[in-house]
Amino acid sequence: MKLTIRKDQLNDAIQQVSKASSSRPAIPILGGIKIDVNHQGVTLTASDTDISIQSFIPVENGEFVIAKVEKPGSVVLPAKFFVEIVKKLPSDEIEIEVKEQHQTMIRSGSTDIQMVGLDPEEFPILPTVEQSEIISVPGDLLKSMIRQTVFAASTSEQTPILTGALWNLADGQLKFVATDRHRLASRTATVETPEAYRFSNVVISGKTLNELSKIVPDDHTHVDIVVADNQVLFKVGNVLFYSRILDGTYPDTSKIIPQQFKTELVLHTKKLTDAIDRAYLMSREEKTNIVRLVTQEDGSIEISSSSTELGRVTELLEVNEMKGEQLRIAFNSKYMLDALKVIDSEHLFIGFTGAMSPIIIKPTDHQHSLYLILPYRTTG
Amino acid sequence: MKLTIRKDQLNDAIQQVSKASSSRPAIPILGGIKIDVNHQGVTLTASDTDISIQSFIPVENGEFVIAKVEKPGSVVLPAKFFVEIVKKLPSDEIEIEVKEQHQTMIRSGSTDIQMVGLDPEEFPILPTVEQSEIISVPGDLLKSMIRQTVFAASTSEQTPILTGALWNLADGQLKFVATDRHRLASRTATVETPEAYRFSNVVISGKTLNELSKIVPDDHTHVDIVVADNQVLFKVGNVLFYSRILDGTYPDTSKIIPQQFKTELVLHTKKLTDAIDRAYLMSREEKTNIVRLVTQEDGSIEISSSSTELGRVTELLEVNEMKGEQLRIAFNSKYMLDALKVIDSEHLFIGFTGAMSPIIIKPTDHQHSLYLILPYRTTG
Repeated sequence: MKLTIRKDQLNDAIQQVSKASSSRPAIPILGGIKIDVNHQGVTLTASDTDISIQSFIPVENGEFVIAKVEKPGSVVLPAKFFVEIVKKLPSDEIEIEVKEQHQTMIRSGSTDIQMVGLDPEEFPILPTVEQSEIISVPGDLLKSMIRQTVFAASTSEQTPILTGALWNLADGQLKFVATDRHRLASRTATVETPEAYRFSNVVISGKTLNELSKIVPDDHTHVDIVVADNQVLFKVGNVLFYSRILDGTYPDTSKIIPQQFKTELVLHTKKLTDAIDRAYLMSREEKTNIVRLVTQEDGSIEISSSSTELGRVTELLEVNEMKGEQLRIAFNSKYMLDALKVIDSEHLFIGFTGAMSPIIIKPTDHQHSLYLILPYRTTG
Repeated sequence: MKLTIRKDQLNDAIQQVSKASSSRPAIPILGGIKIDVNHQGVTLTASDTDISIQSFIPVENGEFVIAKVEKPGSVVLPAKFFVEIVKKLPSDEIEIEVKEQHQTMIRSGSTDIQMVGLDPEEFPILPTVEQSEIISVPGDLLKSMIRQTVFAASTSEQTPILTGALWNLADGQLKFVATDRHRLASRTATVETPEAYRFSNVVISGKTLNELSKIVPDDHTHVDIVVADNQVLFKVGNVLFYSRILDGTYPDTSKIIPQQFKTELVLHTKKLTDAIDRAYLMSREEKTNIVRLVTQEDGSIEISSSSTELGRVTELLEVNEMKGEQLRIAFNSKYMLDALKVIDSEHLFIGFTGAMSPIIIKPTDHQHSLYLILPYRTTG
């Protein structure tokens, strides 16, 4: 293998795929980036057990020459050092040559690097994904959907299935759900999909989705998604991102969402967020993050928290609308804040069905998302 | 105590003094900020055992009213919560009122906070510093002097005196020296000082100097410095910063700096820094950070490092000037990089007196700074 390649393009591709290389690989090859060179271009691949990312650099982009291939071939190079050295090389062009026993020479300007390469035959083979049915989602929408749900996924490996987000597709509606048993987030969107195509119980690790988010562009560029038996493939421009589907059955959460409420409030999202944030600062000192919400006779609400060592924060907040019974409830202010921060609507609806039943938070501008948090049992 | 004060001004002053409050105080009062209110203004003070910072907010700034004092008084409030809540309060004005048993009410907009205050009588008393002799240093110069020396101070508490930087003043020249026994940094500057005023063996903790740096403005605003028996006082606008002087005698480092060299090089600072940086990336894998520098027959130098697992980096670098014997030397590339990164001169001088003797690095533009690193003993 021997080629000359532009530093910027190589560096961009390395940054993208390196997110899938293990920082503490079980075997050295999993901490590497595979480089495959042919006369069409250069393919970089990295893979740990959960994610694989592949990026293709064509030899030319229109008139613009990116790589000159002298001899096709393959090698695996240790990711950590390779990632860091490439961006610091002195010239805009980099020459890479693989000699006997995968020994790799990298030359750029007056810098000469000799790297111990690994055997590409030992590198994991990418999963084969049948590309019959494709859903297409704008990048910015996919990022929003991830951001608005993944925070509610569990971080405990005791319940592996809950560390993921559940994806369902039916009637052209893609729905994400995440829950850690204390709270739940759900987000729906209309997507481009073949007619009558549907799937259910596709659960993707929250960590993986956060990694995916980093390579998805923040604009309308479409991301193609292919769901196979135990893998999901995302195509983002020249990048292929493979994720394992988590094993197991995701719990049915539809029944825990109340449809009718005893108390209903409409509030200004930013004002409520700021008030809860101040109460959270005090509640955090007590570890439990308990904040109380009490409706007032005059139609406003009082939000408060207290700490035996520090004192007490009391917030009075006007409501835009209030229906139903007077209410006194306590909840985890961190969970509430997490939900409030991702609501993209100037006002929001909160529905209560009693001091022990789930609290439902929804934007008022649209019906795409729904958040649930369980209240705390408290005395008084 | 009762007053109304503008949030911005209170917040700025809190941010400044809070750097001196202990995050893990031995007794609760040391984790607090003391507030003293009289008809001239509000004084905030925080103090741990090493640093005390005091900031004064006048009741008015020209035409502009900052605080309205209804009743003078004092209280100590827990710093961590106070720092965070003040910046998040909803209104531009904050009312603070201290009631019986130091209980403190903070009101802003519809937010009502009750804080458990502490007895101001229990707060540490600030050191008394005689203000007879003052040196005056522009803020940006003081910051540079700190940045260009403190990195070489020891981080090991086994040699407490070396965790500080040594300050000497003689003939209007202020000199900072820091060393951890493996390297040394020194920086001199001409400062405004009373005639014939001098001091020596003033050693200030590197950590303290880094904290000081954060409140020193990045411009020509002068910082007044008063050195007393066991304290140094820095005046930065309305802020007083007190630092303890470290106990003990700083070692005499003047004799270890060679005055004559067997090999002398003049190099381009940025090119050398980049080459060492690439060699460092490889050397880091071996923990020792060993990089070798070998002069070449053609007048250039070769910089190289190697790792048994990863490979080898070789850099060829042109020199601007070379005098004396051919040379082969090894050193800690991290130490070299630390020095190169703070040299503010396009070219630099490196002097060697042999493979086992100190390496001296100096800017070529001026004589204000000098860096020394000890070479590594290596074989071959």
